[in-house]
Amino acid sequence: MNLKQMVGIEAATHVKSGMVVGLGTGSTAYYMVEEVGRRIKEEGLNIVGVTTSKATEAQALALGIPLKSIDDVTHVDLTIDGADEISADFQGIKGGGAALLFEKIVATYSNKNIWIVDESKLVVKLGQFPLPVEVIPYGSTQLLNLFATKEMAPTLRRKENGDIVKTDSQNYIIDLQLDQIDSPKELGTWLSSLPGVVEHGLFLDVVNTVIVGRENGPETIQVNH
Amino acid sequence: MNLKQMVGIEAATHVKSGMVVGLGTGSTAYYMVEEVGRRIKEEGLNIVGVTTSKATEAQALALGIPLKSIDDVTHVDLTIDGADEISADFQGIKGGGAALLFEKIVATYSNKNIWIVDESKLVVKLGQFPLPVEVIPYGSTQLLNLFATKEMAPTLRRKENGDIVKTDSQNYIIDLQLDQIDSPKELGTWLSSLPGVVEHGLFLDVVNTVIVGRENGPETIQVNH
Repeated sequence: MNLKQMVGIEAATHVKSGMVVGLGTGSTAYYMVEEVGRRIKEEGLNIVGVTTSKATEAQALALGIPLKSIDDVTHVDLTIDGADEISADFQGIKGGGAALLFEKIVATYSNKNIWIVDESKLVVKLGQFPLPVEVIPYGSTQLLNLFATKEMAPTLRRKENGDIVKTDSQNYIIDLQLDQIDSPKELGTWLSSLPGVVEHGLFLDVVNTVIVGRENGPETIQVNH
Repeated sequence: MNLKQMVGIEAATHVKSGMVVGLGTGSTAYYMVEEVGRRIKEEGLNIVGVTTSKATEAQALALGIPLKSIDDVTHVDLTIDGADEISADFQGIKGGGAALLFEKIVATYSNKNIWIVDESKLVVKLGQFPLPVEVIPYGSTQLLNLFATKEMAPTLRRKENGDIVKTDSQNYIIDLQLDQIDSPKELGTWLSSLPGVVEHGLFLDVVNTVIVGRENGPETIQVNH
């Protein structure tokens, strides 16, 4: 079992019957969704899932997990999702899978958020991982220029075939190579203020529990923001 | 000649050959675009237009105005647009025509912004006009609930036939009936921070010149923010 699978299965033990559960996106969340599907089938677990991307929606439907839109539930009890980087003070960067917008929307309305990561994602300060910013296509070149003048090393995310990556909302992703983010809240506020920026990948004061996959087993960390 | 037509034609006199001109959206900007088209045809005016909506793009194309995307120009020399409300300190509300996102993107990259309004749009404080907020459809019901708990009297904008209005970016508009906005900057920062909010209709420190249509003629006001 790899570390991602280990934490995916561990996180799924936090899911209880009767819950509305936010289902994250990405290679680690994948294993959690698989395990939730298995528990529904084999253990009679009874939940409603709220998905964070079209990809997770397709996976969950194939597993027979009952789904609702975030707009058809009053709240989400628990969301389990991956993260691309988690700092020593438990702030996060997400969006490597281009699903940051729906992930942040679902996380915002969740009573509890669990992040599942292998130990390579834990860092002292954020910024080695490129910060994804979801932007409206119209004006995206102006934003690329603006970020370049601020020496934020922006790149427009493309697929291997060279096509521009489009999010589930048909927007673009600009990745900022910042190396070290000293003031994530200030940066997030500035990014949010820019016309054409739909959302950024800084997830601040969001997570309640981090489950870290280590060689000797999963470690669960409770977070107080 | 009505007041909207009067200021539309007056504003078009600010357009000079060689300029890149942002072309606004709405019933007042309509007359300005018509006049720019007439000057191109009859006076040999030579400009490039940057449009702020699909509606204005269609109008400009029909008039034979050469167009470029905001991403294919280095900057915009001058943008002329309407406004739904202008306060005594020259802050504005825009978005009655659902084009606030592209309008704000183009205004942001414009060296100069002119707003053209009939005198009914001038107010002491903003807020009688409902503040439009462009939001991602996913999560929009949660945002409506949030705004309702803050007593912001939100309504999801619909067409006369009951269909939800979709913007040029396929998003929704939530209108907030705030009556009086005491701290527009604070409000704008808060709205921008909400996941799912793409843009809001507060245009702050944007306008350089206001042309007001009055019964006895157009009044031009220079603004220093």
